[in-house]
Amino acid sequence: MAGEKLKPRDPDWETKVRASFARQTFMDTIGARLSAVSPGRCEIELPFRRDLCQQHGFLHGGVVTAIAANAGGYAAFTLMPPATSVVGIEYKLNLFASPKGERVVARGRVVRPGKTLYVVEAEVEAESGGERRAIGRMLATMMCVEGIPEVGQEVRP
Amino acid sequence: MAGEKLKPRDPDWETKVRASFARQTFMDTIGARLSAVSPGRCEIELPFRRDLCQQHGFLHGGVVTAIAANAGGYAAFTLMPPATSVVGIEYKLNLFASPKGERVVARGRVVRPGKTLYVVEAEVEAESGGERRAIGRMLATMMCVEGIPEVGQEVRP
Amino acid sequence: MAGEKLKPRDPDWETKVRASFARQTFMDTIGARLSAVSPGRCEIELPFRRDLCQQHGFLHGGVVTAIAANAGGYAAFTLMPPATSVVGIEYKLNLFASPKGERVVARGRVVRPGKTLYVVEAEVEAESGGERRAIGRMLATMMCVEGIPEVGQEVRP
Amino acid sequence: MAGEKLKPRDPDWETKVRASFARQTFMDTIGARLSAVSPGRCEIELPFRRDLCQQHGFLHGGVVTAIAANAGGYAAFTLMPPATSVVGIEYKLNLFASPKGERVVARGRVVRPGKTLYVVEAEVEAESGGERRAIGRMLATMMCVEGIPEVGQEVRP
Repeated sequence: MAGEKLKPRDPDWETKVRASFARQTFMDTIGARLSAVSPGRCEIELPFRRDLCQQHGFLHGGVVTAIAANAGGYAAFTLMPPATSVVGIEYKLNLFASPKGERVVARGRVVRPGKTLYVVEAEVEAESGGERRAIGRMLATMMCVEGIPEVGQEVRP
Repeated sequence: MAGEKLKPRDPDWETKVRASFARQTFMDTIGARLSAVSPGRCEIELPFRRDLCQQHGFLHGGVVTAIAANAGGYAAFTLMPPATSVVGIEYKLNLFASPKGERVVARGRVVRPGKTLYVVEAEVEAESGGERRAIGRMLATMMCVEGIPEVGQEVRP
Repeated sequence: MAGEKLKPRDPDWETKVRASFARQTFMDTIGARLSAVSPGRCEIELPFRRDLCQQHGFLHGGVVTAIAANAGGYAAFTLMPPATSVVGIEYKLNLFASPKGERVVARGRVVRPGKTLYVVEAEVEAESGGERRAIGRMLATMMCVEGIPEVGQEVRP
Repeated sequence: MAGEKLKPRDPDWETKVRASFARQTFMDTIGARLSAVSPGRCEIELPFRRDLCQQHGFLHGGVVTAIAANAGGYAAFTLMPPATSVVGIEYKLNLFASPKGERVVARGRVVRPGKTLYVVEAEVEAESGGERRAIGRMLATMMCVEGIPEVGQEVRP
């Protein structure tokens, strides 16, 4: 999308992204936080925790997928019109190094904003002792949906 | 793999799969359990919990990915030789219906057992009021690795 | 989809699938043919040809993708309503053995028929000296679209 | 890979990439050419041809996959050691706009060079009347293999 402008169609894009993220109980459960958001981009970070691991003591691939999918999904949500919601259609993650260290960061980006389908990507890095190392890459499809209220929201007319 | 025999090369395949699953702290954190395992197959189930959700109150896609990847990964692990370990190389999940209901079950299966790479698939169903509904499908690549000790294991010589 | 009925919504499903396939000049260029079609399923076969190969003398992965995507896409098209068309949204192919032998066959199947999005899978086999060998697996998303005329068709009102 | 150096381990990287590409009869059949190659990167272009199309008169998704997979695969091959060969393990392509216009260009890039597995990505653009439009994105896994001679090569000892 180099050079293309990604213009939000909802003036409240930041508020709605942060509110939606806050409704994700799973993010709270694993201790992830939305560390940055701008039109077409979103960053989520997760401090390492011993209770989120797979058998080798690295962060579980499902945990990495969760933050990468959210980084991509909320990057897309920044560009969606008012009174819509974002859902993931499919995710593909390549995990090429061990998710270990002090924290993992996923940076999502909209590759292609469509009318209903948004193609997104996310890169995932692990930080350890001040050093960053790329550990994963996601390519995924998000969908803009209407009429599915988020938790605590009224059903939209 | 219709008609092909999937023979474990490790007589202790079931013990090692269960022990490895038990080392995954993340499975304990989300309350998932390994409900069935046989050569080339593995099933994992997860009761619904309110603290594992995304913004609409459905199970988070990362949680679904976690149990699907484990179902596929441990299906592959049943066929791997002694003194090896399984790691996920890449996962692709299509999530085509909402992960809601009383529980979600992922059934993994080895599509192709290779020398180091195993192609696996998993189907995911949600159960609600006694009814099962397909909600997702995974196609993924697992790798058989040596020399990466699991938590609490000695480094293998 | 075990046990679920896949009912075509277009009585002319077979005619339209065969007509659409016949409009694909690329299938003619590579010598592929639609060898079987039924509601929710489609099979495409391709005799080996020396001018369709990659550097090792095996069929090119793009050729395998083409017939697998068509097998899945036309499996989906059998279930789509009249006056619509099928387009591929995303394909993921695992190619785990060499596409060589006398011919390659892709068998596509609808995993989930949605309103606009269809999740499909395809398995690919190579036949050599009377023996079949699985060589690939695809998981893909197809979309039902309106208003895109196929070659030689009038724009639908 | 921003900032990381991608150093070829084979001084003849360019010669071997071009020779391998030239052995792909399928590239000749569809009229694709290798338009640029540098360490960790490769670009392939394909002029539009009426005999490479799907039912709407756009380039077939399998053709787009072929050039994207080659762009990614040969990007990886630039970094592989002497006396090895590259094979595709799995490809995932999102095709988000119609492959039409005068030509299509795929630009591949190594995301992660591993010991045997290379994660690559490719972006695909269509050019029409001097304008470029992004139409697809691939995320794929390539493998470095030994002992598989390319067409016309001796088996390596």
